[in-house]
Amino acid sequence: MFKKILIANRGEIAVRIIRACRELGIRTVAVCSEADKMALHAQIADETICIGPAPSKDSYLNMQAILAACEVTGAEAVHPGFGFLSENSSFARLCERCGVKFIGPAPESIDRMGDKANAKITMKNANVPVVPGSDGAVTSVAEAKRIAHEVGYPVMVKASAGGGGRGIRKVDSEEELENAVIAAQQEALRFFSDDTIYIEKFIVDPRHVEIQILGDEHGNLVHLGERDCSLQRRNQKMIEESPCPSPLMNDELRARMGEAAVNAARAVGYYNAGTIEFLLDARGDFYFMEMNTRVQVEHPVTEFVTGIDIVQQQIKIAAGEPLDLKQKDIVLKGHAIECRINAENPAFGFRPSPGTVQALHMPGGPGIRVDSAMYAGYTIPPYYDSMIAKLIAYAPTREQALAKMKWALAEFLVEGVDTNIEYQLDLLRDPDVERGSFDIGFLARRKEKHC
Amino acid sequence: MFKKILIANRGEIAVRIIRACRELGIRTVAVCSEADKMALHAQIADETICIGPAPSKDSYLNMQAILAACEVTGAEAVHPGFGFLSENSSFARLCERCGVKFIGPAPESIDRMGDKANAKITMKNANVPVVPGSDGAVTSVAEAKRIAHEVGYPVMVKASAGGGGRGIRKVDSEEELENAVIAAQQEALRFFSDDTIYIEKFIVDPRHVEIQILGDEHGNLVHLGERDCSLQRRNQKMIEESPCPSPLMNDELRARMGEAAVNAARAVGYYNAGTIEFLLDARGDFYFMEMNTRVQVEHPVTEFVTGIDIVQQQIKIAAGEPLDLKQKDIVLKGHAIECRINAENPAFGFRPSPGTVQALHMPGGPGIRVDSAMYAGYTIPPYYDSMIAKLIAYAPTREQALAKMKWALAEFLVEGVDTNIEYQLDLLRDPDVERGSFDIGFLARRKEKHC
Repeated sequence: MFKKILIANRGEIAVRIIRACRELGIRTVAVCSEADKMALHAQIADETICIGPAPSKDSYLNMQAILAACEVTGAEAVHPGFGFLSENSSFARLCERCGVKFIGPAPESIDRMGDKANAKITMKNANVPVVPGSDGAVTSVAEAKRIAHEVGYPVMVKASAGGGGRGIRKVDSEEELENAVIAAQQEALRFFSDDTIYIEKFIVDPRHVEIQILGDEHGNLVHLGERDCSLQRRNQKMIEESPCPSPLMNDELRARMGEAAVNAARAVGYYNAGTIEFLLDARGDFYFMEMNTRVQVEHPVTEFVTGIDIVQQQIKIAAGEPLDLKQKDIVLKGHAIECRINAENPAFGFRPSPGTVQALHMPGGPGIRVDSAMYAGYTIPPYYDSMIAKLIAYAPTREQALAKMKWALAEFLVEGVDTNIEYQLDLLRDPDVERGSFDIGFLARRKEKHC
Repeated sequence: MFKKILIANRGEIAVRIIRACRELGIRTVAVCSEADKMALHAQIADETICIGPAPSKDSYLNMQAILAACEVTGAEAVHPGFGFLSENSSFARLCERCGVKFIGPAPESIDRMGDKANAKITMKNANVPVVPGSDGAVTSVAEAKRIAHEVGYPVMVKASAGGGGRGIRKVDSEEELENAVIAAQQEALRFFSDDTIYIEKFIVDPRHVEIQILGDEHGNLVHLGERDCSLQRRNQKMIEESPCPSPLMNDELRARMGEAAVNAARAVGYYNAGTIEFLLDARGDFYFMEMNTRVQVEHPVTEFVTGIDIVQQQIKIAAGEPLDLKQKDIVLKGHAIECRINAENPAFGFRPSPGTVQALHMPGGPGIRVDSAMYAGYTIPPYYDSMIAKLIAYAPTREQALAKMKWALAEFLVEGVDTNIEYQLDLLRDPDVERGSFDIGFLARRKEKHC
């Protein structure tokens, strides 16, 4: 096992990793920017090295500075957390060349999942369901009709070079197809000087359901069930839970999605922790979206329902240990929900609200977990992500977990900065959220009440 | 179910109960002394009533004031927590007469367990093992010899009217008995003007092992396994854990102790939550000590290993609901340890250290629970118990739970008052504690290092 690990991150995830190291008897090195000298992670690590000024590119993204800190402190491994360098294969390769273990997958796995178009082909070949479509350019209306008929309406006609919503048409029936193809081609030509188009099935109001996997460096892979992260605002997850509250979810579907996730990971030679994100439609069909080749913000909900410490597993895997988990022993028990607490003002377009925390009370008690790097008197710097805490509630049933989360949010007090706590509470009181009836478009459709 | 409950307590247990009420959709009324107006429980309850000045007898022990607060607020039930009025059968009766439900056992059960001598006889009749002995006065040396031979040496010769260590003799063999009886009688006569003596088996270096029970008002009783609370300083528990780390503890012994506990409760018509405290000797024999007819400080360790919310169960039971638990479904999983964090100075005889908390950081993350009513800026009043937080760590194994507790204690920061955090950390590093090898005399014997 490693004797010393450097944590190339900040905030609650850095604190989370330091705690996991402590529990495994590993010494910790924090790195911090000049703006983060009073940050909790910088204060509780065994050693702390300042690696540069606040803009992330000059500190938390500065690979040379981080590897120099490893050398100075004798850290044998680097945990990248999430964000920053966690999915940067160049950094993983540089670590390798410097003889420092990167706690994550092989750089090749990061690359193979990082290129989304190639990843889709790899997944299809591995029998992982992907959104059906033309597998590349469509050159005639006749071909378009054939493919659309094959995958079923509605479909999307998309410009290969597209972006920003340009050159995209949703088509509900064959009658509309010819006009849509022509319109998309013309628009694509006008905006991108390239009229290549392709066709993909339109997934109607899907849920975001992702599968957590763990793999060791000896070829063993398991999945830890799913998380539902459909409550998103502009692709930013807001509330995550496990198990998925859809009435479609059951042991059989979970097993099939789990198997697909393990196949996906195996197809790219994956090891360490990772997450396969799927779209789950209203019929119970699911489609590969992408893989996150790192630990995720929402990993605690899975830790609650499985009793498995994912960050400790990451470290043990990186140390070369074989997985001490068997698929049949991994059972989801109870229900966990996570709310991301951000220093932001929902009434003003969720604008960030950095500043000094004047008074602080965080909830506690049975089934409550708060992962945070905040303390009373701490000044939240303006340079980083606005997430200041993760509040996780766990109870035997979803109904109880929701009730717990509601009082915990109501009890959570942060004075001195604006937060989304009231917004989250209001969201949890929405009858559709209470019923578990939502999809990835829910928050965009919902009239935001800004209470 | 109740619509509104009054919590006749303060500190972390009042906060704990308020949270349980919230989760059940019940409104809460806090009572506070004038010294506790800034206390957390007084701030987070739906309503708060000040019931008098600081000395507990004028506020938290003032039955009339508390029942008046019930009347004013329309609270239908009172949760007494622990300490204060929780084991006061007069208060339970007064509640009954005022039409307010006392969340606890019947007053008769409190009384039958409160009288220790009578309780012992009741237990013996219910086939609950008690410390063997003479069942009353011994009038001759011959009788003493017969009983001592029966129960086995060593025995204690004790003055019936005794106290303060007077009139007590430990006897290791029959040769010593006659002199001991005479000496004890003479001393008893001299100090208490009563030379009545009795004989009890001397339990050598026992562990304190207690069984949590839950019973509804319809005659159903279950037990939730054991807690080991042997690490005590002057009868004050310091660290508690579940399961008991003794190599003697196993499913068979747990089942026998559990059955004895359920029998003990049934013998006094017990319902609601309660704890039967036993002495467990080195041979695996156990003896009834006493029953705590209320929720205990250390209930969270049982909540962790069973997944059962004991305070919510108390409330549901008091509302007349039948137990929703079956004995066969209650299984202990993992290991939980609790450290009591006190505002006191171990280097000066553990003298209390009230004052203002200048800076505060409490640990968090997976498997950590902190029950506390403290916040940065809070002034700990000098009038009450010095416990300011309970830190509970839960992990799959005892070794992992200990490792977790150690980093959590190391991370716990309280500035402005003295605490026993370092003392607890030092204690957990003791090889005997790490091995789980200790009994109720351990802390008294241990050279206190006051680090």
